[in-house]
Amino acid sequence: MSEKISPLAPKEIAVVPPIAGVRLGAIEAGIRYKGRKDLMAIVFDKPAQVAGVFTRSKCSSAPVDWCRKRLKGGKARCVVVNSGNANAFTGKKGRESVRLSAEAASLAFGCRKSEVFLASTGVIGEPLDVSGFSEHLGRLQTLTREDGWQDAARAIMTTDTYPKLSTRRFEAGGREYSVTGMAKGAGMIAPDMATMLSFVVTDLPVAADILQKLLSKSVQGSFNAITVDSDTSTSDTLLAFSAANGARPIADAKDQRIKALRHALDEVLHELAMMVVRDGEGATKHVEINVKGAASAKSAKRIALSVANSPLVKTAVAGEDANWGRIVMAVGKAGEPAERDRMSVQFGEITVARNGERDPGYDEAATTAVMEKDFIPITIDVGVGNGKATVWTCDLTREYVAINGDYRS
Amino acid sequence: MSEKISPLAPKEIAVVPPIAGVRLGAIEAGIRYKGRKDLMAIVFDKPAQVAGVFTRSKCSSAPVDWCRKRLKGGKARCVVVNSGNANAFTGKKGRESVRLSAEAASLAFGCRKSEVFLASTGVIGEPLDVSGFSEHLGRLQTLTREDGWQDAARAIMTTDTYPKLSTRRFEAGGREYSVTGMAKGAGMIAPDMATMLSFVVTDLPVAADILQKLLSKSVQGSFNAITVDSDTSTSDTLLAFSAANGARPIADAKDQRIKALRHALDEVLHELAMMVVRDGEGATKHVEINVKGAASAKSAKRIALSVANSPLVKTAVAGEDANWGRIVMAVGKAGEPAERDRMSVQFGEITVARNGERDPGYDEAATTAVMEKDFIPITIDVGVGNGKATVWTCDLTREYVAINGDYRS
Repeated sequence: MSEKISPLAPKEIAVVPPIAGVRLGAIEAGIRYKGRKDLMAIVFDKPAQVAGVFTRSKCSSAPVDWCRKRLKGGKARCVVVNSGNANAFTGKKGRESVRLSAEAASLAFGCRKSEVFLASTGVIGEPLDVSGFSEHLGRLQTLTREDGWQDAARAIMTTDTYPKLSTRRFEAGGREYSVTGMAKGAGMIAPDMATMLSFVVTDLPVAADILQKLLSKSVQGSFNAITVDSDTSTSDTLLAFSAANGARPIADAKDQRIKALRHALDEVLHELAMMVVRDGEGATKHVEINVKGAASAKSAKRIALSVANSPLVKTAVAGEDANWGRIVMAVGKAGEPAERDRMSVQFGEITVARNGERDPGYDEAATTAVMEKDFIPITIDVGVGNGKATVWTCDLTREYVAINGDYRS
Repeated sequence: MSEKISPLAPKEIAVVPPIAGVRLGAIEAGIRYKGRKDLMAIVFDKPAQVAGVFTRSKCSSAPVDWCRKRLKGGKARCVVVNSGNANAFTGKKGRESVRLSAEAASLAFGCRKSEVFLASTGVIGEPLDVSGFSEHLGRLQTLTREDGWQDAARAIMTTDTYPKLSTRRFEAGGREYSVTGMAKGAGMIAPDMATMLSFVVTDLPVAADILQKLLSKSVQGSFNAITVDSDTSTSDTLLAFSAANGARPIADAKDQRIKALRHALDEVLHELAMMVVRDGEGATKHVEINVKGAASAKSAKRIALSVANSPLVKTAVAGEDANWGRIVMAVGKAGEPAERDRMSVQFGEITVARNGERDPGYDEAATTAVMEKDFIPITIDVGVGNGKATVWTCDLTREYVAINGDYRS
């Protein structure tokens, strides 16, 4: 946890309403940090339907491997998350830690091991000592509360400068429901997915397979459309739960209530993803890259990510420099179809380049005014077709280097 | 040109011997910089055979487009290069500037326009004013000298902190020949190719098509195996010339003399490429990434580049932190086959991870000693097959951000 709060932090942390039968708690387990909570659990009184999306890293962490397998059962009774150590690249020891954690959780929360979901975030490559987990989780069991969301969201932070919570209410079938989620992530953030943990719960009763479809789709416009530093984590985990206190899950994907959930879920995931970008390590600017006129949506996304991940574009934004030459460079290096002489670039509403050269009416002062804001939308028309995509990123500052450089000298 | 010389700069600038019939000169044309030379020409008394490799950017600059076309003729009489303005993304104006420059050069040096080669480096997107080129080149014509190499190498610098020259002598058919080259480049450097200009001349008489094959191959282990910031330029240009003062070019690729040239060319290009990496913007460390055990050489190169371009790996190296967890992360995100539990990582000679976890004999002090050096070889065995590759990069420092951030405030 950083001492310094991101200048892009929300004015206040969302207060999220409790969900019946969903209890959260966090304690100090002393895994790495001193004087803060670092072990968190979400406990479902009745089995919840569960869906998940994970990192595409070829070197996924032990907890990610565990969750992938457990997902097949479709049922969850708890999630246990620690910060400070990612339990990634820890070999046999890592698998053993995961097994022991699940055992401790199943005893503490009175459920099957197969209903325990796990996530870890922090340093990679150090063995995670879970010898104290039985005792810690036993104690944690007595501390979980329906209004424990904020406490839990704080416990999973690493280099985050603020806890990330989002909630939406929606009406479905004449009743009111909600979706509420938390996330952590600030560095090692790139699509597929961000280095990121996120846990989202709804009280609408939905079958696991439908929830999975909603989640896999929703992630495309949210966590899979953000990048801080192009570095994909070994540990990315997004889990969604339907905790309806035993109500029979909706099993028909065409049920009208699913549509209402989809909309709310999209909003919550998008808001959480934006919070992650706005807490990007060292970030001072929130940047939206819109690409249009591409050969396809896929091509547009590749171009947008090439721009969003370009160190030269990101450092220019940090310097409030409307350096569209670097944007063109980043479009060019993407290797996707682009018509140099039909390309246009806008910063905010201002067209700086048109038809492959500087716009005749280019106004330096007006453009600088756009760059001085903390949210900067950039729109690029690559002049080929109708494909479009949007991704979000932040700038690259000296602070990012300082945070990650661990300057020992 | 930076005031501060890279800490990785060579102790002294190579003194390169003249090549008969190859004259170089540089003058102040006031394109962007004050008080330094920014317009350079290499002139061949007799037509030289020419080969080239260019950026793969979809937004290549006007001079790149020009050279690509002229290459078909296979003959060159001069190269004219300016720094300060890349003449890239300049639309119709850019094409017109190129045409006028070639015209001015053909008059000044008494050759055909089609024998004029052009390169520009500097700001992208600003029109290049060439109205003074006729006069400048006329004057330059009187200044070219066979010993003008260093002067010319200085004139093409942008954010470079030192001129880059390399030379090798070789014996072929009982006679001594040489290959001599210059390069510029410090940022916007990534394979295919580096943001980079390089001009290499040999006095061995070689036909253009053979020279092209040698060059395309040699670039794989040199300029296409380096990355500073993953950003590929719009302007990358590598031209090779055989300037044999009218001697009949060798047209048989199997001629023994070609083999001798290949060896010398490989060395010169490799040395120039290393000079570019060691002059990477803000660089304090020269990093070699060796990947072995990959599914193929191509796969190994992708993994190596994923590691070399990872901001988190590069900032860790800047901080002299042997953070092998981030290396594993970068291997994982490459999307190439890798066996997590058979993977090993070495810094220098020290094995820090083996079989997917920290080496039992890991010694922090010994590893730190490796990280404190200015050349850091990292070897990764991904445990799948026999594919291997090596790429070179530098660290990512606050200085890189400062150089490219153009902090206006």
